[in-house]
Amino acid sequence: PRVITLPGDGIGPEVTAAATQILREVAPDVTIEEHAIGGVAYDTHGDPFPQVTRDALAGADAVLLGTVGGAQDSVWNTLPRPKRPESGLLALRKALGCYANLRPVRVQPGLEHLSPLKPELARGVDILIVRELLGGVYFDGDRKIDGATAYNTMRYTTPEVERVARVAFWAAEQRRGRVTSVDKANVLEVSELWRRDVTALQGREYRGIHLNHEYVDSVAMLIVSDPSRYDVIVTENLFGDILSDLAAVIPGSLGLMPSASLGDGAGLFEPIHGSAPDIAGRGVANPAAAIMSAGMLLRHGLKRPDAANQIDRAVALALRQSPTRDLGGTADTATFTRAVLDALE
Amino acid sequence: PRVITLPGDGIGPEVTAAATQILREVAPDVTIEEHAIGGVAYDTHGDPFPQVTRDALAGADAVLLGTVGGAQDSVWNTLPRPKRPESGLLALRKALGCYANLRPVRVQPGLEHLSPLKPELARGVDILIVRELLGGVYFDGDRKIDGATAYNTMRYTTPEVERVARVAFWAAEQRRGRVTSVDKANVLEVSELWRRDVTALQGREYRGIHLNHEYVDSVAMLIVSDPSRYDVIVTENLFGDILSDLAAVIPGSLGLMPSASLGDGAGLFEPIHGSAPDIAGRGVANPAAAIMSAGMLLRHGLKRPDAANQIDRAVALALRQSPTRDLGGTADTATFTRAVLDALE
Ligand SMILES: CC(C)[C@H](C(=O)O)[C@@H](O)C(=O)O
Ligand SMILES: CC(C)[C@H](C(=O)O)[C@@H](O)C(=O)O
Repeated sequence: PRVITLPGDGIGPEVTAAATQILREVAPDVTIEEHAIGGVAYDTHGDPFPQVTRDALAGADAVLLGTVGGAQDSVWNTLPRPKRPESGLLALRKALGCYANLRPVRVQPGLEHLSPLKPELARGVDILIVRELLGGVYFDGDRKIDGATAYNTMRYTTPEVERVARVAFWAAEQRRGRVTSVDKANVLEVSELWRRDVTALQGREYRGIHLNHEYVDSVAMLIVSDPSRYDVIVTENLFGDILSDLAAVIPGSLGLMPSASLGDGAGLFEPIHGSAPDIAGRGVANPAAAIMSAGMLLRHGLKRPDAANQIDRAVALALRQSPTRDLGGTADTATFTRAVLDALE
Repeated sequence: PRVITLPGDGIGPEVTAAATQILREVAPDVTIEEHAIGGVAYDTHGDPFPQVTRDALAGADAVLLGTVGGAQDSVWNTLPRPKRPESGLLALRKALGCYANLRPVRVQPGLEHLSPLKPELARGVDILIVRELLGGVYFDGDRKIDGATAYNTMRYTTPEVERVARVAFWAAEQRRGRVTSVDKANVLEVSELWRRDVTALQGREYRGIHLNHEYVDSVAMLIVSDPSRYDVIVTENLFGDILSDLAAVIPGSLGLMPSASLGDGAGLFEPIHGSAPDIAGRGVANPAAAIMSAGMLLRHGLKRPDAANQIDRAVALALRQSPTRDLGGTADTATFTRAVLDALE
């Protein structure tokens, strides 16, 4: 199998190197090819998603991404929108056709104290957020800034709603059998369509799944005040961006949060943390989320659950034995990676 | 002065009655006139914002609103969108021209234990969220659901951005002098306009205020993991809906959260909690937020800061001496209201 790595900006190269090392160890037959994305790709190729990277994706089995984007005051942010690092990421998602972003949010037993929530609320939280990743206000072409007015259009079609809802129902079947669909149907027509289509699909094909609907403002409250009520959450792109980042704080460290983006072709696997330009290049970034993303790549991308489990267990052990600085420990990137390697069976 | 009360649905009538009682006590010269809104207005007048209510607003000095909307499975939710309770609320906001929704989020000293956050994070939190209330995706006429497609349009103009930003800068001048403007400028043109106009206004007229910009997904994280970093937050309608509800969980009880919506005419004052149909009519609802909203009405609507302070102090005392059930106490609506009356100087 062929895996493309796209280290990207900031701490991306460091954490991707760590994840690649682990990937090679548990799956030595995988060929790995590195390409450019994001701000560094703009600097070297004049394009945050260069043609050479796009070409390399053809025939790839999975993509391991680092992080993309610069500091708030980076010159990259003053470029025309299509040249900015984030546009490279959006173009990559589109090129791969990854319409379902999976964000597991799990509080590890014994690590409740890391959560900003009270331990009794954090304990046992195990949510999967499924975010629609190719539709809504993100990609719609009907958008403009012009003098003193600007607009964007939030649009969905039934096929777009159904394909991501299927992923949520499928995931719920492997979990606790509950899906909460999130919308703003009391205000938005686009949410009315979303709710109608998710409901119909459940009635037709997923009667074994318990489905309920909640408004996005209410979910923003409840995910903090009563997170244990959720199993699988499915929602559109913009709401998913906000809610998945919100939920990601519950375990207490973004350094522990991997993600998978799935579509009909190769999947995209990436840590959810940002590019952390302030600590980039110093060898201190926590590579756990990138390594766990490599685990998701093995599980969902290459269908190797045994290798994925091996990584998950080794990371859990390394987190206890050799925690990084963001977790109150002292391990730097290399030390933590070594601890994971040592913990692999 | 003339105040219109709109009790609305669910527990709205109970908490509005309590707030009206307090209002009469501290401002006996105010004339109070009650009108219908929401689901009950639909039931009695066939319209969630009937003409008779609309007419009554002319010449009013302030409006005290209860709560609007039914249970998830209410028949009201099956009505055509313009007939639903929520549409009455949106039409009311529009009729009053209230473009700035003010949501104070304050953790009362000694009540940190109510927060879902760890006490050390909750302590001292004092945020004011200023939400734009008449623009964005909420009101734009370019919206449709049609067969297998639906869309809504998120639109802003420079004057809409500037008028709400002014409220935020003005409020920051009375507080700690910091404004965080929230957008998704890395993806949306409408956010690019927002950021540009807020920045320009600060440069022209509010140089004494410290302004920074953050992305909505990042704010959703930071408001939970580090809420003390914020003073005033200003944002567009939909982001504001989500973030203000999210922030509202920090003090630990929605029953403690008033709001004010200001524009060029009469202001609108309402508790932020929902209509709680499950406990409606039983006399157990916590009226503190409605009473505090009457306080905001006196402060911002009738410019009577002394009477407003009187209410705030009496509520704080009553909360300690006679807490309601949602706060772990035993007081019902009448008992709590009596405690506030007794505590008034
Ligand atoms: C960088 C940005 C375009 C992106 C998004 O909003 O999708 C990010 O927030 C994410 O969630 O991966
Ligand atoms: C009921 C609904 C239309 C409303 C909104 O989204 O504005 C509510 O959530 C609020 O924040 O007052």
